[in-house]
Amino acid sequence: MFEAVELGQKVSKKTFEKELPELRTRLIRAQNAFQSYKGPLMVIFHGLDGAGKGELMNYIGGLMDLRDIEINTFWKETEAESKRPPFWKYWMSIPQRGHISFSFGAWYTGPMLSLVKNETDIPVFERQMKRAARFEETLANDGAIILKFWFHLSKKSAKGKLDVLKKKYGKGDIYDRAMWHREKYDAIVNAAERGIRITDSASSRWHLVEADDKWHRTKKVLEILTGTMEAALKKEEAGVSAQPPGNINSAPPVLSRIDLSNSLDKGEYKKSLAKHQERLNTLAWEVYNQGKSVIAMFEGWDAGGKGGAIRRLVQGMDIRLVSVHSVAAPTREEIAHHYLWRFWRDIPREGFISIYDRSWYGRVLVERVEGFASPQEWGRSYEEINDFEEQLTESGIILLKFWMHISPEEQLKRFKQREELPWKQYKITEEDYRNREKWELYEDAANEMIARTSTGFSPWTLVAGDDKRYARIKVMETFCEKLEGSL
Amino acid sequence: MFEAVELGQKVSKKTFEKELPELRTRLIRAQNAFQSYKGPLMVIFHGLDGAGKGELMNYIGGLMDLRDIEINTFWKETEAESKRPPFWKYWMSIPQRGHISFSFGAWYTGPMLSLVKNETDIPVFERQMKRAARFEETLANDGAIILKFWFHLSKKSAKGKLDVLKKKYGKGDIYDRAMWHREKYDAIVNAAERGIRITDSASSRWHLVEADDKWHRTKKVLEILTGTMEAALKKEEAGVSAQPPGNINSAPPVLSRIDLSNSLDKGEYKKSLAKHQERLNTLAWEVYNQGKSVIAMFEGWDAGGKGGAIRRLVQGMDIRLVSVHSVAAPTREEIAHHYLWRFWRDIPREGFISIYDRSWYGRVLVERVEGFASPQEWGRSYEEINDFEEQLTESGIILLKFWMHISPEEQLKRFKQREELPWKQYKITEEDYRNREKWELYEDAANEMIARTSTGFSPWTLVAGDDKRYARIKVMETFCEKLEGSL
Repeated sequence: MFEAVELGQKVSKKTFEKELPELRTRLIRAQNAFQSYKGPLMVIFHGLDGAGKGELMNYIGGLMDLRDIEINTFWKETEAESKRPPFWKYWMSIPQRGHISFSFGAWYTGPMLSLVKNETDIPVFERQMKRAARFEETLANDGAIILKFWFHLSKKSAKGKLDVLKKKYGKGDIYDRAMWHREKYDAIVNAAERGIRITDSASSRWHLVEADDKWHRTKKVLEILTGTMEAALKKEEAGVSAQPPGNINSAPPVLSRIDLSNSLDKGEYKKSLAKHQERLNTLAWEVYNQGKSVIAMFEGWDAGGKGGAIRRLVQGMDIRLVSVHSVAAPTREEIAHHYLWRFWRDIPREGFISIYDRSWYGRVLVERVEGFASPQEWGRSYEEINDFEEQLTESGIILLKFWMHISPEEQLKRFKQREELPWKQYKITEEDYRNREKWELYEDAANEMIARTSTGFSPWTLVAGDDKRYARIKVMETFCEKLEGSL
Repeated sequence: MFEAVELGQKVSKKTFEKELPELRTRLIRAQNAFQSYKGPLMVIFHGLDGAGKGELMNYIGGLMDLRDIEINTFWKETEAESKRPPFWKYWMSIPQRGHISFSFGAWYTGPMLSLVKNETDIPVFERQMKRAARFEETLANDGAIILKFWFHLSKKSAKGKLDVLKKKYGKGDIYDRAMWHREKYDAIVNAAERGIRITDSASSRWHLVEADDKWHRTKKVLEILTGTMEAALKKEEAGVSAQPPGNINSAPPVLSRIDLSNSLDKGEYKKSLAKHQERLNTLAWEVYNQGKSVIAMFEGWDAGGKGGAIRRLVQGMDIRLVSVHSVAAPTREEIAHHYLWRFWRDIPREGFISIYDRSWYGRVLVERVEGFASPQEWGRSYEEINDFEEQLTESGIILLKFWMHISPEEQLKRFKQREELPWKQYKITEEDYRNREKWELYEDAANEMIARTSTGFSPWTLVAGDDKRYARIKVMETFCEKLEGSL
């Protein structure tokens, strides 16, 4: 693959400088217009040491408006990063819509180095590259432009760069590192070729750049960078939307099979509640002492008993070990990112239990039913959510998902009750009654959601909720068992 | 002070339960109404071990709506926290307007423990308490309600609690800790009394609660908590605004004394630029290797040369070590906090250089002149900013502040030039011309700002900017000298 760019291409400084004013004007104009683009532009620089990536970045930085540009090096991993799933830091590096980031290496660096050092084998490497490809596809679907550069040096010119380095810095850390790159040249190029093949796609292109000559590589990158922004803006203006239709299948009616006649009498309930709350107290401290993270997430019908179940769960634990998140409408900053971004951002720190009252599933429930997301958007969310949850559980987070189910009749009864209790009145509004009319649409959405996102690593727990006592104990029991199995 | 609450007050469970429904309804109603209050409510629990703070928190949590409530324990310091000024974590714990937080100990814990252990002396402790008081005053001025509880146990009842602990947990960590509290009883109570005296103020009250009896302390806290919210809401509704007028003094005309005739010829400039950029490159890597943080901040007239100076500065360094922040209008989340909150949040991590194009001084410049902040608001900001900068520099951050000064004539010349350069046209708008008409108002504001915030720990560098070459070299020189002196 790389032979194609071993052409000895050169551009003289004079030629470059003649073309610069026009190129610069185009670049700045594109950058300005890009501020209102529907997605971010993420530029990734990758390639052999000595290929001049740092120098190039400084040069481009000198031409562009530096405000709203972010540069990510991922040099030293912080504690906050090392304690979360590996992709957390990449999610956090995503610029908001209309902004531009330049990243060095990013999600390719670790896997490639491990392969070169023989710490992983090819199947593992390919799995990692596929995850990278899915990550990029997720962002591209959401409007991001991902522009990837591989700076290639032929074997001969890599050796030449090494001599230059020795002259400049003498033998030392920098030289040693470059020397290692030189010695592993074949292995690095092999890994790169393999990685690039898997992660090159129409929505996220690799560009191979012959990096030997300074003005050639600079011109090439500036042209591609500018051209990419111009093309994207033009396409957006023309209103091109070549998205395939979402895959809307009819889902099996999981919900209708839940036995809502389950119940528990008051005496049994009280005994069981006390027993479980004691278990919970011990388990929560165990979570803290072991430095684990727990996410328990509740979805379900309005008045389905989410709040009551959460309250009983929390009361069993030291409240200082728990935080309850209520998922509300996204803020402006959140809207300026992929819908999963805010949930990535809020991945809890170790030792604590996070409880979510509604969650990222809003995408395939309320956003689907109310039309806030297009069929294409929510249609691809199932896979995105599965991937997100897989990464959470792989990193050791204990994840629980509860669907609190009730019948429409029970819901109506509870609405009426709420209107009578002085400290619950505020919970009931006109909107709750309007939502009842969409019961079937929500039921379809929930059925499909459960069918598509109940995975081996993160199954749904469907809770029969018509009897509140039964439902609360069921939640506590499931919670305790899951934690006992994972600690 | 504490004798006043050694009264042996008790409430029977029966009495408490009789009063609970009404209290709970009031509490929930207040919490709901509070969502649209102009500031956050910060509740702080402090007191001897064994006073039942954790148990009380769990009980209150069980009554309230847990969503939008944050609980801060500050138990283990994270890496992110330990690498920033001590108050960073407290700024980050401030809830947004209309939200409620409960904190355990917070900014009192460390200083009090150090005093009890004789690690600090009383003058140091008093300085720490004064900083705490200023912090609380800053927040209270911005609308926050700070409600502080000290849970008091008499010497006798502290001993009683110890016996209960021994019975419950046996001898172990918990017992040892409580035993230590018991042994240091007098020292703790002394430190508390001293701290409370300094930090009790009309805008941020301490409440001493006799903690011996469970239902007494629960009732007391619920009543104060509810009453505080109710009173604040009522006051807000009545439109009471008892703020004192801002302190607007005429400031010395610092700016008019800047010699704008300074200049540098082209040859000298080129030589000096190359020399300084080499120095900068070495210094930036030195910053990275020593794990220091640098903040360089630019204020000044429109077209005063901020952008050009920043560009030359950045070009001298490896751009991967630098980030440029352009301070724009605050986001919704930022508006929901004190104006300094977003700058606290963005304190850079160690090893990197942050450059600010405009800054927290917007409060006393554009917000003052355009009337976005009231005279009371910007009037008290000078002290708040000085305190902020003092904390930055105390924690080892290298802080530089540049005022880029030009004459009105030079400004007009530059506006005209910009309109002619294709890659600069976007920088110039109608608004720029409108702002020129307010030149004198901005000059007054800048004069006062410089007079009030040029401190020993963080002086302003006033840069004569009519000659761009002179100004750029002046900035680089100052930057290099400051870094060389601090590394």
